[in-house]
Amino acid sequence: PGPDLTAQTEVVRRQSELTKPQGSLGRLEEIAEWLACWQGRAQPRVERPRVAVFAGTHGVAARGVSAYPPEVTQQMVKNFLNGGAAINQLAAAIDADLRIYELDLDHPTADFTQGPAMDETRAANAMAYGMMAAEPGIDVLCLGEMGIANTTAAATLCAALYGGTGADWAGPGTGVTGKALAHKIAVIDEALARHKDAIARRDPLELLAAVGGEEFAALTGAIVAARMGRIPVLLDGYACTTAAAVLHSVDRRALDHCLVAHRSAEPGHTRLLDALKMRPLLDLDMRLGEASAAALAVPLLKAAAACHNGMATFAEAGVSSKDA
Amino acid sequence: PGPDLTAQTEVVRRQSELTKPQGSLGRLEEIAEWLACWQGRAQPRVERPRVAVFAGTHGVAARGVSAYPPEVTQQMVKNFLNGGAAINQLAAAIDADLRIYELDLDHPTADFTQGPAMDETRAANAMAYGMMAAEPGIDVLCLGEMGIANTTAAATLCAALYGGTGADWAGPGTGVTGKALAHKIAVIDEALARHKDAIARRDPLELLAAVGGEEFAALTGAIVAARMGRIPVLLDGYACTTAAAVLHSVDRRALDHCLVAHRSAEPGHTRLLDALKMRPLLDLDMRLGEASAAALAVPLLKAAAACHNGMATFAEAGVSSKDA
Repeated sequence: PGPDLTAQTEVVRRQSELTKPQGSLGRLEEIAEWLACWQGRAQPRVERPRVAVFAGTHGVAARGVSAYPPEVTQQMVKNFLNGGAAINQLAAAIDADLRIYELDLDHPTADFTQGPAMDETRAANAMAYGMMAAEPGIDVLCLGEMGIANTTAAATLCAALYGGTGADWAGPGTGVTGKALAHKIAVIDEALARHKDAIARRDPLELLAAVGGEEFAALTGAIVAARMGRIPVLLDGYACTTAAAVLHSVDRRALDHCLVAHRSAEPGHTRLLDALKMRPLLDLDMRLGEASAAALAVPLLKAAAACHNGMATFAEAGVSSKDA
Repeated sequence: PGPDLTAQTEVVRRQSELTKPQGSLGRLEEIAEWLACWQGRAQPRVERPRVAVFAGTHGVAARGVSAYPPEVTQQMVKNFLNGGAAINQLAAAIDADLRIYELDLDHPTADFTQGPAMDETRAANAMAYGMMAAEPGIDVLCLGEMGIANTTAAATLCAALYGGTGADWAGPGTGVTGKALAHKIAVIDEALARHKDAIARRDPLELLAAVGGEEFAALTGAIVAARMGRIPVLLDGYACTTAAAVLHSVDRRALDHCLVAHRSAEPGHTRLLDALKMRPLLDLDMRLGEASAAALAVPLLKAAAACHNGMATFAEAGVSSKDA
């Protein structure tokens, strides 16, 4: 579905009457408008945020592209379930419902330097699984992921979608530098060469299966389902925005109900944001994933809704307006 | 007092043990360290924020430098007290104690194009009044202001402190453009010419009285008192940071316990941040004042403290560390 233009018109009208100079709340005004458009109500509401973290395991992790061993994906999922990770603290701080979605962690995708990471069925199943994250009653959906080696998958998928080489799209991820980063770049270039026929066919969903991962497919499913359910979406960092970019490559309007929460310190993210023409809400040098930055941006949405709904108009407050 | 280096060392040690790649929480890690330094405790706390808004009236407002008439200062104070302004909604969203400090609103400062805005006694009294905002038990102090014509005062004070002309430091403020902005610039240049001897003497406190305003003096008092009381400070926008700059001109370390919450859309603010070498936490095109952006940044501090205090270490969570 498209934006609710009636709600949007109502918001714009009210913004102009509230006791502040026109436009002086900057992006908070833009956020209120966006929330109204995609929630389909003139009084936006951010009382029930959900944080959804999708965890996937990657065959390409065996190539030594991360600073951490592959088993850290499962260990961190356990940490999520025990409440010890950053996202647990951040979700609690915004009173969010935190859900961890595990994607068959004991069976990593295939090493995509050797062939497709997944067949179409596996990618479609992951996408359907991701759709479960968007349930009725949620006011905003914060999306993120966990998966050792998934910045390698993100960089490969971005290069497949937008062109360029491993060096253009790869970064340190969990902390890979020097020779190890050169190796990561070589692995990505190897994958791009392996999949050059698929890349030439320019089918974003085929590329998602070929060089993505299950958490990427699940994220695309969640974004689509949120749109159907009138739930605005906050995208987290590089991997999450890459999953979103698959949908954007299919349809330029597919992400209109999404905002990017934060500009990741991972350099590929800035390149991707330029391609998507999306301006992130925050820029705090984070590069953790786990939906951490998406959760961190929720108070901005709460603030935007609170100002919009709660402020007095010039007439109500007896304040002289600009033209008085 | 200076930073608590013992608390800082403790924070840095713990950060390196938490279940995340080193540095991956970006500025949230920097914030946790800063809070610990200036609160003097290894477990930073952001449970009791206070928002202090200082309102002042300006003789120069009679020169028509604002898009709004001078009486809007008092009208907006009434709006604050009735709960209808943006800052009321934003303070409520962070469970902050909101205090409005009125500075003799019925007696505006003198028009500083004709002479000093205040004598030393009046400036000192305002400074002492501002000190009341920093009471024991507050975890963070959000500072802001309200005062029709105070971006004119801010621009004049910045030019007096750092050099440059009205055109270098003036911006639209509440929405002044075209001929009206040219007039505002001319008024500032007139004031700079009037006070050229004082500017040549380079005494920041004399300049504060000459071309500032009572809310500026009160803000400097609040910043100093917060330092004495071990309360970290969030600075709001252009006028607030200008008041802080007076102290920085006296002593380069006077603002070490302060962070700038947001880069104002007012262009002089970016120039001032460059001079102070301070990087704001947010960049959301706001230009409202009222401590609105300072309040909006509090959830970032809460998040930083929550992650720092609540996350599990690698050992506690049984997660393989990078060197494993």
